[in-house]
Amino acid sequence: MCKTMNRENYRLLEDYMSSCMEDSAHDREHVYRVLFNALEIAKTENDVDYDVLIGACLLHDIGRKEQFENPDLCHAVVGSDKAYRFLTEHGFKDDYAKRVKNCIETHRFRSSNPPDSIEAKILFDADKLDVTGAIGIARTLIYKGIVSEPLYSMLPNGRVSDGSMDSEPSFLQEYKYKLENLYSNFYTARATEIAKERQSIAAEFYNCVYREADEAYERGRQELDRRLR
Amino acid sequence: MCKTMNRENYRLLEDYMSSCMEDSAHDREHVYRVLFNALEIAKTENDVDYDVLIGACLLHDIGRKEQFENPDLCHAVVGSDKAYRFLTEHGFKDDYAKRVKNCIETHRFRSSNPPDSIEAKILFDADKLDVTGAIGIARTLIYKGIVSEPLYSMLPNGRVSDGSMDSEPSFLQEYKYKLENLYSNFYTARATEIAKERQSIAAEFYNCVYREADEAYERGRQELDRRLR
Repeated sequence: MCKTMNRENYRLLEDYMSSCMEDSAHDREHVYRVLFNALEIAKTENDVDYDVLIGACLLHDIGRKEQFENPDLCHAVVGSDKAYRFLTEHGFKDDYAKRVKNCIETHRFRSSNPPDSIEAKILFDADKLDVTGAIGIARTLIYKGIVSEPLYSMLPNGRVSDGSMDSEPSFLQEYKYKLENLYSNFYTARATEIAKERQSIAAEFYNCVYREADEAYERGRQELDRRLR
Repeated sequence: MCKTMNRENYRLLEDYMSSCMEDSAHDREHVYRVLFNALEIAKTENDVDYDVLIGACLLHDIGRKEQFENPDLCHAVVGSDKAYRFLTEHGFKDDYAKRVKNCIETHRFRSSNPPDSIEAKILFDADKLDVTGAIGIARTLIYKGIVSEPLYSMLPNGRVSDGSMDSEPSFLQEYKYKLENLYSNFYTARATEIAKERQSIAAEFYNCVYREADEAYERGRQELDRRLR
């Protein structure tokens, strides 16, 4: 039996994806944004197999729950195995299931296993785009809430740390170590273009959080010192 | 015994505050920002009792946990009772404990019980300042993660709702219903001034989240429709 990505099969994969999603930072709407960004990127690339791309986008994060429960697991590896099993058990051709599996396996950044096919590169870029701009900042903050990490850390001198030298996790630390640096090294030109459009709001937001917080401590600590007898 | 807000008593209240704080949106650092903003505002007001102001700021959110566990409870009411009890049990004068209690009771917006004393007005404004600007956006998003609420809701036409007509809770909905409207009606001139400095980053961030998300759906849904056979 040779299945293609018609409306019925789209619905089948969508329902399976929904059944695997839980926390709100990696929720269903993230999956749709990745799918829609991928379709936008694909318009400017050649020889894209849309059946593979759509299947891989829909199923790319179905291993998230397993990684959340056991951080030693990689959701890209777990998800690629789950996707392969689901697709072959539901009548998709082995070659199709393998190509979807391969895209999912390489969608998470690890230098040892970069995306290879054009569909894998588009998924990688589309997923990374969802960590850029205001959406990327918003998802990062929601995730900090889920895992109970703070906005920033304090320096020994009682001022707010800008995150750049921190070992403790916080929102400002994650911006400096991850979010700030992901605006280059996309595989596709269209993703690079969309990322550049979104870069300034992310930088501006980081600067404002840091400045608003640090100003309060700077002005307040001196005044407190004066007032405590 | 008549206690004043010396370093030893500051530490006593600070330790009690720490023992009452848990989730990261209303964590210790929020309390320090409120305290430091309050001291900044107080500089431009007359006849401020700093002992009352500092005590009220430190203890203003100690009823949060009770409200989180039982949403029928108001953290301002619970916290004011806990503060009064703690202060009188630790040798502070009854009049002092009553004045701190009064500030805490009225720090949350309810038209029936507005802040009355200058210390209560400053606490109210300093607490509200921490919901403005980038910090206010960041705290709101962290809280959405804690309570598992999404970034936005979808409209029946498959586009992203801007939040203004939503009944379901989300980040965009909270911006439209709460964050957007709190830049006026501060009690003090200094708080109004600080809030105005922070207004544009909040509005810009909201606009970018909405636009980045909605653009993806707008472009992607049409393309998906073309690709599904």
